[in-house]
Amino acid sequence: MFELIARHGKARRGRLTLAHGIVETPSFMPVGTAATVKALTPSELHDARAQIVLANTYHLWLRPGLETIEAAGGLHAFMAWGGPILTDSGGFQVFSLESRRKLDDDGVTFASHLDGNQHRFTPENVVAFQQKIGSDIAMQLDVCVKLPAPREEIENAVRLSSAWARRSAAVPVQRGTKLFGIVQGGLDPALREQSASDLAELDLPGYAIGGLSVGETREEMYATARRTAAMLPLEKPRYLMGVGTVRDLVTAIDCGIDLFDSVYPTRCGRNGRAMTHAGELNIFNASFTRDASPLDDACDCSTCTTFTRAYLSHLFRAKEMLGPRLLSYHNLYFVNTLMREARASIEAGTWAATRARERP
Amino acid sequence: MFELIARHGKARRGRLTLAHGIVETPSFMPVGTAATVKALTPSELHDARAQIVLANTYHLWLRPGLETIEAAGGLHAFMAWGGPILTDSGGFQVFSLESRRKLDDDGVTFASHLDGNQHRFTPENVVAFQQKIGSDIAMQLDVCVKLPAPREEIENAVRLSSAWARRSAAVPVQRGTKLFGIVQGGLDPALREQSASDLAELDLPGYAIGGLSVGETREEMYATARRTAAMLPLEKPRYLMGVGTVRDLVTAIDCGIDLFDSVYPTRCGRNGRAMTHAGELNIFNASFTRDASPLDDACDCSTCTTFTRAYLSHLFRAKEMLGPRLLSYHNLYFVNTLMREARASIEAGTWAATRARERP
Repeated sequence: MFELIARHGKARRGRLTLAHGIVETPSFMPVGTAATVKALTPSELHDARAQIVLANTYHLWLRPGLETIEAAGGLHAFMAWGGPILTDSGGFQVFSLESRRKLDDDGVTFASHLDGNQHRFTPENVVAFQQKIGSDIAMQLDVCVKLPAPREEIENAVRLSSAWARRSAAVPVQRGTKLFGIVQGGLDPALREQSASDLAELDLPGYAIGGLSVGETREEMYATARRTAAMLPLEKPRYLMGVGTVRDLVTAIDCGIDLFDSVYPTRCGRNGRAMTHAGELNIFNASFTRDASPLDDACDCSTCTTFTRAYLSHLFRAKEMLGPRLLSYHNLYFVNTLMREARASIEAGTWAATRARERP
Repeated sequence: MFELIARHGKARRGRLTLAHGIVETPSFMPVGTAATVKALTPSELHDARAQIVLANTYHLWLRPGLETIEAAGGLHAFMAWGGPILTDSGGFQVFSLESRRKLDDDGVTFASHLDGNQHRFTPENVVAFQQKIGSDIAMQLDVCVKLPAPREEIENAVRLSSAWARRSAAVPVQRGTKLFGIVQGGLDPALREQSASDLAELDLPGYAIGGLSVGETREEMYATARRTAAMLPLEKPRYLMGVGTVRDLVTAIDCGIDLFDSVYPTRCGRNGRAMTHAGELNIFNASFTRDASPLDDACDCSTCTTFTRAYLSHLFRAKEMLGPRLLSYHNLYFVNTLMREARASIEAGTWAATRARERP
């Protein structure tokens, strides 16, 4: 299922074979929370070189719900995306609800942010849901802790996440869905070690590093990601959750991580922030209003080859939805192109130079 | 510039040759008020069979302004649409401002809806603006009256519109921009006759019927459009402003009108209203939530061949911008396909049957 093709330092070039296709890694997964990567069609995702899309169990569970997606023949058919899909378990979203959820050893009960109705997630039912909608990769239900947090709280998150991983792994596999475990443990190396070794015992198809990008500093995140990656089985794919800036992606690849997801490129795109080879730029900058150059002159995406900064600037000032759409596309293309360059340079043994150029 | 290829009853099949290409008529012009047909790219407009796009002088004048569009090399380059463009003169928008504008015999002074700044439109400067941005068809500045209105007010609108048409026609032609006059006169046949004959004397490249869809009943609009079309020179293109429903379009074609524009298809699309071969439907209808059929099973547009009603319904309920985008595309494709069928049937001598089918 996962083949390691090349390594350069800790960085890995791999190939993940899933029920709906192959994912060449390192790979970035655009976030399609509600069965749509905001503003973009599946055919554009493909053109923007996305190989796998992330959708969200919490959101899909609430709307449109299991019955609707099953009636459509699964999530792939429902959203007309034929490639691989990873679904987040919803753990992160439920724990973000704070006052609206109640945790016990068997799962978590929460009130929907849409209508306040009560729902319950268990380690078993979130996996069953993900299997039924046909996800290529299902994430276990985990307990996510906002940092900083008391040590006992992080210990408890590790204990429950490990127990829930065991229960999730006991759900019989359906439709080729692969289960990934999620390592917790905050910034504490011993707790991360405990969590990683609990999960490794289950011999799962893949492992994610969770509980980061939740309040810690960037340097703390990098240090923990690097340490935790080293604790994971070499031959299994590794996924760092919630990472999407150029700096974070390059660092994470350098830590030996294979998969990433983040709303960052598309959210920035909707807000007028462009990721370019010359760094990030704000399309509302006054200097762009008559700038006839492309958003990123080193980019060959359709936004950059068709439209000028002046026009994009006008679209955003006039609050025209074509603006968010064109910048979302560009940012996603940009990040996926970075991934492609990373893959090529790891294979060619030039990753150190690529890394130094991207994160000087 | 305008060639009449076939006629069936009053219905006309024509060909309009403009600076940026040919428009086969009858033709519907999607509205790109602010240099963008909301949510769609120029390449999608082309795929949706749009031949000519309408943009708005009032909006472009205020934002991004003449200098920005001139710096880009004109409106075509600015918005990356290589085909023909018609620009509305802004008369309709300025007269909609009511308390914020002041009319005199030489033009109209108004306060911008964006920042309250004072601006002035004259018959000459709106034509010069449209020429400078490179419109294929420029509309004269006219005086538009909301119905019902006192006869003197309509008389005054006719008098000023005719005088302004004369002044607009005196502006030397630039960049191949063709000037269309606008017939006013409310619902009064004598005033329409007066207006049409004033304009015909100027031997303009084309004529629009304005001052309709402004408060009158549908039957009043149809009667006036039919009468007014008959007053216009046979060999010149005729444009009915602000018309975009199936019923209105079919009736207007039957009156001998060649060009149409309306926000209707795209605005409906953004609001979840689909134009289909089975009539209009509201995507929020509960029966669509698990409906695996296409929006319109007689349509071969990319929305209908890729996505289901269930998915589109989900996108609208989740307020995802892909929904408005996909429905806008479909509605535009639908209207342009209707135009294509009208052209073919007028040429084939079967228009009466097409008309009867579309408007039973």
